[in-house]
Amino acid sequence: MIDEFGSDPEAAIAAAAKRYSNWNRWGADDGVGTVNFLDAEKRAAAAALIRRGVSFSLSLPFDENGPQFGWKRRVNPVHTMMSTGMDTAEQMGLPHGLSVADDAVFMPLQCSTQWDGLGHVFDHGVAWNGRAGREVVTSEGDVATGIERLAAPVVGRGVLLDVGRALGEDGELPDGYPITSADLESTRERQGVSIGRGDLVLVRTGQLTRVRRGEGWGTYAGGPAPGLSFETLGWLHGTEIAAVATDTWGVEVRPNEWPDAMQPLHQVALPHIGLLLGEMWDLDALAADCAADGVHEFFLAAQPLPFTRAVGSPVNPVAVK
Amino acid sequence: MIDEFGSDPEAAIAAAAKRYSNWNRWGADDGVGTVNFLDAEKRAAAAALIRRGVSFSLSLPFDENGPQFGWKRRVNPVHTMMSTGMDTAEQMGLPHGLSVADDAVFMPLQCSTQWDGLGHVFDHGVAWNGRAGREVVTSEGDVATGIERLAAPVVGRGVLLDVGRALGEDGELPDGYPITSADLESTRERQGVSIGRGDLVLVRTGQLTRVRRGEGWGTYAGGPAPGLSFETLGWLHGTEIAAVATDTWGVEVRPNEWPDAMQPLHQVALPHIGLLLGEMWDLDALAADCAADGVHEFFLAAQPLPFTRAVGSPVNPVAVK
Amino acid sequence: MIDEFGSDPEAAIAAAAKRYSNWNRWGADDGVGTVNFLDAEKRAAAAALIRRGVSFSLSLPFDENGPQFGWKRRVNPVHTMMSTGMDTAEQMGLPHGLSVADDAVFMPLQCSTQWDGLGHVFDHGVAWNGRAGREVVTSEGDVATGIERLAAPVVGRGVLLDVGRALGEDGELPDGYPITSADLESTRERQGVSIGRGDLVLVRTGQLTRVRRGEGWGTYAGGPAPGLSFETLGWLHGTEIAAVATDTWGVEVRPNEWPDAMQPLHQVALPHIGLLLGEMWDLDALAADCAADGVHEFFLAAQPLPFTRAVGSPVNPVAVK
Amino acid sequence: MIDEFGSDPEAAIAAAAKRYSNWNRWGADDGVGTVNFLDAEKRAAAAALIRRGVSFSLSLPFDENGPQFGWKRRVNPVHTMMSTGMDTAEQMGLPHGLSVADDAVFMPLQCSTQWDGLGHVFDHGVAWNGRAGREVVTSEGDVATGIERLAAPVVGRGVLLDVGRALGEDGELPDGYPITSADLESTRERQGVSIGRGDLVLVRTGQLTRVRRGEGWGTYAGGPAPGLSFETLGWLHGTEIAAVATDTWGVEVRPNEWPDAMQPLHQVALPHIGLLLGEMWDLDALAADCAADGVHEFFLAAQPLPFTRAVGSPVNPVAVK
Repeated sequence: MIDEFGSDPEAAIAAAAKRYSNWNRWGADDGVGTVNFLDAEKRAAAAALIRRGVSFSLSLPFDENGPQFGWKRRVNPVHTMMSTGMDTAEQMGLPHGLSVADDAVFMPLQCSTQWDGLGHVFDHGVAWNGRAGREVVTSEGDVATGIERLAAPVVGRGVLLDVGRALGEDGELPDGYPITSADLESTRERQGVSIGRGDLVLVRTGQLTRVRRGEGWGTYAGGPAPGLSFETLGWLHGTEIAAVATDTWGVEVRPNEWPDAMQPLHQVALPHIGLLLGEMWDLDALAADCAADGVHEFFLAAQPLPFTRAVGSPVNPVAVK
Repeated sequence: MIDEFGSDPEAAIAAAAKRYSNWNRWGADDGVGTVNFLDAEKRAAAAALIRRGVSFSLSLPFDENGPQFGWKRRVNPVHTMMSTGMDTAEQMGLPHGLSVADDAVFMPLQCSTQWDGLGHVFDHGVAWNGRAGREVVTSEGDVATGIERLAAPVVGRGVLLDVGRALGEDGELPDGYPITSADLESTRERQGVSIGRGDLVLVRTGQLTRVRRGEGWGTYAGGPAPGLSFETLGWLHGTEIAAVATDTWGVEVRPNEWPDAMQPLHQVALPHIGLLLGEMWDLDALAADCAADGVHEFFLAAQPLPFTRAVGSPVNPVAVK
Repeated sequence: MIDEFGSDPEAAIAAAAKRYSNWNRWGADDGVGTVNFLDAEKRAAAAALIRRGVSFSLSLPFDENGPQFGWKRRVNPVHTMMSTGMDTAEQMGLPHGLSVADDAVFMPLQCSTQWDGLGHVFDHGVAWNGRAGREVVTSEGDVATGIERLAAPVVGRGVLLDVGRALGEDGELPDGYPITSADLESTRERQGVSIGRGDLVLVRTGQLTRVRRGEGWGTYAGGPAPGLSFETLGWLHGTEIAAVATDTWGVEVRPNEWPDAMQPLHQVALPHIGLLLGEMWDLDALAADCAADGVHEFFLAAQPLPFTRAVGSPVNPVAVK
Repeated sequence: MIDEFGSDPEAAIAAAAKRYSNWNRWGADDGVGTVNFLDAEKRAAAAALIRRGVSFSLSLPFDENGPQFGWKRRVNPVHTMMSTGMDTAEQMGLPHGLSVADDAVFMPLQCSTQWDGLGHVFDHGVAWNGRAGREVVTSEGDVATGIERLAAPVVGRGVLLDVGRALGEDGELPDGYPITSADLESTRERQGVSIGRGDLVLVRTGQLTRVRRGEGWGTYAGGPAPGLSFETLGWLHGTEIAAVATDTWGVEVRPNEWPDAMQPLHQVALPHIGLLLGEMWDLDALAADCAADGVHEFFLAAQPLPFTRAVGSPVNPVAVK
């Protein structure tokens, strides 16, 4: 990769940004990027992938035991009860023996299984479609690419690329392993599955499997990880997929492929390609099923919660085979 | 209804609870109730309902302008940015021109479009399947029927019963209108659609349409509303549907059908039938489409966010036709 | 006032900002403004004002019934229990009959009785002491004038100016009444109290008294109110007081004294004078006591909670006479 | 201690509860316990302790770097900006160059420097003054002893007992060191200070000093610590002090003095003595000053934020000498 892109990450990012830009592809007002590829026709075709009717939740549990370890202000979800089964009808002032339990949550939207919205990352202050980041995402949130724009469309064909199983040892890639386009393609071919426009591509590295075997999350939510090489930007762009998600915290390989670089693939994928990125997805149960029946494509419902002007959203993606 | 069930709500609730109980139907350990009806076979069959590939989000926007009006501690979601497009790469200490926007939310789980979990309501302190409410839902949350158990299965056949359009004036039922089983059946027949085991039934009253025409939410999230009559419990039980959801805050008619009663249908539906209830769903765009093409059945992905031990969850239900 | 300052609020603000600026008075690095006036000597002298030992909390209750009415995202505090007296020792896994109740809160820091920190308001993007607002208060908070800098010093001599009692009808000024310097001085003289360097001055308008008589908060937390005239900036500056607080949401008169103006006094007081502003203080019990004994000075402990980098803080000011 | 109280913690707790009970001492309706000892006379006398006018905040910073380490759902305070100095007047829709920064916080009330309210702990389900815990502290909070009752009175004479300096090595007691009544008395005598009715007693162990020298908080907020021996209950009761606070997370020694016991002193002090407990107070700067001038008494303003029905409150105690 460094051969191809050179030793200066800033120059490499600029080059990739230029080469793979989708700015204005869907007009100046576009707010959903590559999700445009996932149209009704693609969605209708995906229905045929539901055969057995088995469904898999690809979400981690949202609770206090989640993966966050106190980095910045990213806490795990704090769930509190507003009333419980211990509060009686009398105490609640309710008639005929009725009592009710209610609850609340505080959570950073990026704390667990999530979509990064297009306003999550900026390249030198520039957001998706060439807008000024400082105008797009203020303290009021994202006025141009808020996650609420994705409330309806993110339902379609999902494809699992189980790179961990294909290329890893015991189904897992080591931390720091950069998954290349060639790796993605060889996995795809090995699995005998096609990938094309509008697909929601799930890349399993196996890191989550490994972390779960251990005694705690460690730095899963922010540390070293296998993940996509910067070099895959061409593949991500050229395949015209709608989104890519992984079982790691940050999609791309960590440490990144230049010393001191930080998430350079994000810096191209979100603001330039307009590509939706999914993080901390739990692909293990689905992957086991795919390995067992050899079918790596499925119907995927991965609609975010439509928090208005949010730059991301927790999501419970459900795959149906 | 009062003819059938008598003038004493407590006695009526007890009678209905006994008549329509599903306790132990799926074993003593069951934690999902009527969602058991929605099995893989039903889910596979529902795939055939995706024809055009058009998708509809049935969720209200989750934001500060939501329907809550300060009743109890139910505030609207408060979304705050943890970083924005105004914070520069330098200020964030990030390299090569990268900057990142993050956000957080505080929200009561029952504040907008939602599923009521089975641990949301108790009858004289008794929870679903006959468990003691005080043991099931403590301050730690719901240990027996937490919403996380519904992470995977709530995807299947959706049916819209547009009672507002069928029986209302200009498509809307007035507040306080009790929808009876006969109303549900006549609407169903008028629409030419079947309803059966495992279906996710959406009942449109038109109240949300009316509220949206006005100047504000008023008491939409807790006041008078059209809704299901207590009498529909037999229909809800006998049809063996997996869930019912409405475009109102509380599924059932308000005021309820006895003076001073409070949500008596909930008191039977959740702890005795084990029936999942959906509230504040936005059915208008879907209903308009159904009215236009005459097709009132669809594939519905309505998986909750799996907050561990939660008694409910915000949800973005997506219907695909 | 308009006579003195002209018809253009922007020009008036600029003129007042220039005339009353305290920039660099305490050095380029200063982070506490006029609180510099409240030194140890002043604090020691204030001790003599404690005579009877009677203490008054000047705080509104922090709860769901607070004054906020849903303006922007300013909700009232949401207090939830994390465990209760209903959870048993067994359920909590605790030995020898011990059980514990814990709780949590979500709150905007400006939602009730509060101090505005110096980083709360900017004049054309400029913050206290001439710093660039965009550098001082980022998404990480206020790095130059965070409220934590006021953790220790805000304890000293308090003086109540009960303008409502002095000049109002039945002890209350009407909404929209602009309190002038002459009003402050005539009230001070009538009360026979001095005001000088380092004092914490509390101005009672009586609006809170009136609101409490009514059926709800109405727009108390953001609507019309009696309050300081823009013209008092000279008095606020010249007296060298450390802070001023009122029983209204916004210190200054609303509507402001120019059509379409918004809190012009704030725009001078915070970034230019460096004056701490207190809002929504409950002065009624203290005022009744002062009216009864004729003593309008007291020891005041009004230390904020030191939220790091916060631009304000809830506060429970306690006056001791 | 085990000699005096025997080997069974449950029996020891029962014996101490009986011996030191203050139930009904201030009537059946009492909601503030030993704070009754701190009356106006005591408060007036405390004023004489303000000599130099120097003030000390005894609060830890409230921020994301606080002492919590993810135990249960006790996160550190999460402070987020609702608007910043980067948002311009134009973006905020405000006139004449005005812009405003606002913020919000989510925090467990027990996460940092705090008061435990009387409803924080129960002995076999029984709360302060003999009330049933399940009736006193429901999901609505504490209806009998909510922290709001302490909004005004907790201002008076503070006394520092610097046991760390008196008996420790380099000013610090080791973790697990049980401070006895004899230790408290010998420290008191060594310091030449009296202790009596209504005092707010601050016990410095030096643990916080030690923790701050290290690389992180470790288990400061829930692990081993020096602290009061169970045996001090007699002293706490007999001295008729209003409150005791320490520089540790839990006041009493950890591990406790019986194997597998958990906070037995709390179980007597709160529900039986009615004694206010302060935790995680930062006493170091004050202690250094006291060591320097030999004066260990001072005026202390330690009023909680009056969260209605809360079982505790963050507090910024300010000592003035």
